[in-house]
Amino acid sequence: MQPDLPEHLLINHFRDRAPLTHCMTNDVVQTFTANVLLAFGASPAMVIEAEEAQQFAAIADALLINVGTLTVPRAQAMRLAVESARAAGKPWTLDPVAVGALAFRTQFCQQLLALKPAAIRGNASEIMALAGISAGGRGVDTTDTASSALPAAQALARQMHAIVAVTGEVDYITDGQRTKEVTGGDPLMTRVVGTGCALSAVVAASCALPGDRLDNVAAACGLMKRAGSEAAQASQGPGSFATAFLDAIWHLEGAA
Amino acid sequence: MQPDLPEHLLINHFRDRAPLTHCMTNDVVQTFTANVLLAFGASPAMVIEAEEAQQFAAIADALLINVGTLTVPRAQAMRLAVESARAAGKPWTLDPVAVGALAFRTQFCQQLLALKPAAIRGNASEIMALAGISAGGRGVDTTDTASSALPAAQALARQMHAIVAVTGEVDYITDGQRTKEVTGGDPLMTRVVGTGCALSAVVAASCALPGDRLDNVAAACGLMKRAGSEAAQASQGPGSFATAFLDAIWHLEGAA
Amino acid sequence: MQPDLPEHLLINHFRDRAPLTHCMTNDVVQTFTANVLLAFGASPAMVIEAEEAQQFAAIADALLINVGTLTVPRAQAMRLAVESARAAGKPWTLDPVAVGALAFRTQFCQQLLALKPAAIRGNASEIMALAGISAGGRGVDTTDTASSALPAAQALARQMHAIVAVTGEVDYITDGQRTKEVTGGDPLMTRVVGTGCALSAVVAASCALPGDRLDNVAAACGLMKRAGSEAAQASQGPGSFATAFLDAIWHLEGAA
Repeated sequence: MQPDLPEHLLINHFRDRAPLTHCMTNDVVQTFTANVLLAFGASPAMVIEAEEAQQFAAIADALLINVGTLTVPRAQAMRLAVESARAAGKPWTLDPVAVGALAFRTQFCQQLLALKPAAIRGNASEIMALAGISAGGRGVDTTDTASSALPAAQALARQMHAIVAVTGEVDYITDGQRTKEVTGGDPLMTRVVGTGCALSAVVAASCALPGDRLDNVAAACGLMKRAGSEAAQASQGPGSFATAFLDAIWHLEGAA
Repeated sequence: MQPDLPEHLLINHFRDRAPLTHCMTNDVVQTFTANVLLAFGASPAMVIEAEEAQQFAAIADALLINVGTLTVPRAQAMRLAVESARAAGKPWTLDPVAVGALAFRTQFCQQLLALKPAAIRGNASEIMALAGISAGGRGVDTTDTASSALPAAQALARQMHAIVAVTGEVDYITDGQRTKEVTGGDPLMTRVVGTGCALSAVVAASCALPGDRLDNVAAACGLMKRAGSEAAQASQGPGSFATAFLDAIWHLEGAA
Repeated sequence: MQPDLPEHLLINHFRDRAPLTHCMTNDVVQTFTANVLLAFGASPAMVIEAEEAQQFAAIADALLINVGTLTVPRAQAMRLAVESARAAGKPWTLDPVAVGALAFRTQFCQQLLALKPAAIRGNASEIMALAGISAGGRGVDTTDTASSALPAAQALARQMHAIVAVTGEVDYITDGQRTKEVTGGDPLMTRVVGTGCALSAVVAASCALPGDRLDNVAAACGLMKRAGSEAAQASQGPGSFATAFLDAIWHLEGAA
């Protein structure tokens, strides 16, 4: 037991501070995302109308932008929310779902980058597309391994002054100078919709918590992989996995 | 065993009559709300386009309006649905999620009150904000206990000629004259998204069932707390709790 | 064991080919639909903005149109997606939720029929309404048995040159000439929201897989009923049923 590892400290911060996390995310994963944040101890809120999103982004501790089911009005509301979060000094995180594969969201995400996210979390295809290196994957699936996107992630991190997490069988988390590698997890995590999107929400919340931001984002990735490993051992398929995953997050051990 | 308690009778009415419950609710809790209603024996339907919502509200037995992820077009559709339900003599219930914290939904809910809901279900901050007493909480979380909002709930109930349920660790259900208190439940209920929103849907359906309306709404609150207590005993965390909660509702005992 | 039955072959095709399935479906069942497709081995993607849906429908292997929570902008996007799928030679499937009961979606589905779906999956009321025979049910519930809609299903199949599946306690799958009957399942399937809608997504994906299309759609219906029966035996109510259902799909046996 090393109770002072970043992962243990992050768990304590989640439970002590219950970061209010404004999630503007896709329609498919909203419930699971909220339940993952609740299991961590965070306080999720999904507010989507432009006027309200603008108002709420300044109140919340952190903002997540996930473009999985982007629409024109949602994009407008997201931009206002990001501007409001920035003005209030609150960190925002980008999950560029399927960027590269679809023109509208690719253009939107490229524009949003000018508003300097604190963190970006995507798979290899998405991170490479965002960095302008590849035409991206086929929908939400990546056709590349995370390690192949590491140079793109590092370049993007340096350019944006952001933490970039490129996740897959192995996760790489980088600020452009330092890079952390996170292993673990289980293939069942890819057979339940929303584990990646929920990780982005945890990353977003972790950016509002005390500690080094690179450590926090890597700890968020590590905790999700740990919960995934434990859930896989306790389950018989993707249905019982999703249930066990939330239970495993709930029981993640904090610092002594 | 007192098999003729309002809770037992309400269970029988749900199973015998399968009230068709039109839910215009937020994007995060739609699935869970539908599954809770199905477990009770009700027939849920989510219809949201203005023209359709107007048509369907007159067909359905009860209508729920939940403003958790309100948008401008959704607000217009909700208003038409409420007017249609009223014209058809069908009861409608308001869940004023995060009212007080956000301007657009606060104004919208204040306007809807003129259309006389049969019932209102909210936490302390929301009920106080709706009654014009407080500026409300921070998102969906309340910063007040339910008992502190009881005077506001009673005043609102008298003014609206409605049943007002202010829920929390203890629930208070009032028509402005009589007040019922419901205890039980479990803190895990607050770690799964949608238990409060689903309760509002059960309250909405219960307003269409035979019996005294105050009794019915209090019974709805009591049954949800009972299912929550049973689920907490059968679960290891919020994931297994959500599963056990639906099973517990399914097995709630009716009158002999 | 007859390992070369269409059901076994379909399972193999799902796992080997991971059909990319573009689901434009209702807000209530998106998560469950995605998880059912993932458990089968398919790759689900929900893309809804008109421009993106048009682009993505040509990339994906199959398209599902489900009108459960139809809106005006969603209807426009659906039409563009269907036209794009057709132009790219990709099959599309229609789930006419609550058609007949509501005017807007009834008119929309009637118009969509001119764009020749590969398959249609609905309950008895919906299929009869689509065939112009009945005014339809009350919301998503059917007031007729599947067998009573078989003549309508056969007429519709001949007229559309499509596979029509009319499902209920017994499922009938027809191309207008041949008709297959599928039994099994469990009443608990009707107490979890989205089992019918998820079946439509599996039908949509199966239309993109090798083999006779009537065989494939009947196999999709049979596999869902088999998973439902197994899940019912392993569960204590609708909550544990939904979990066990995904696990059962995951363990469905393919051809040797």
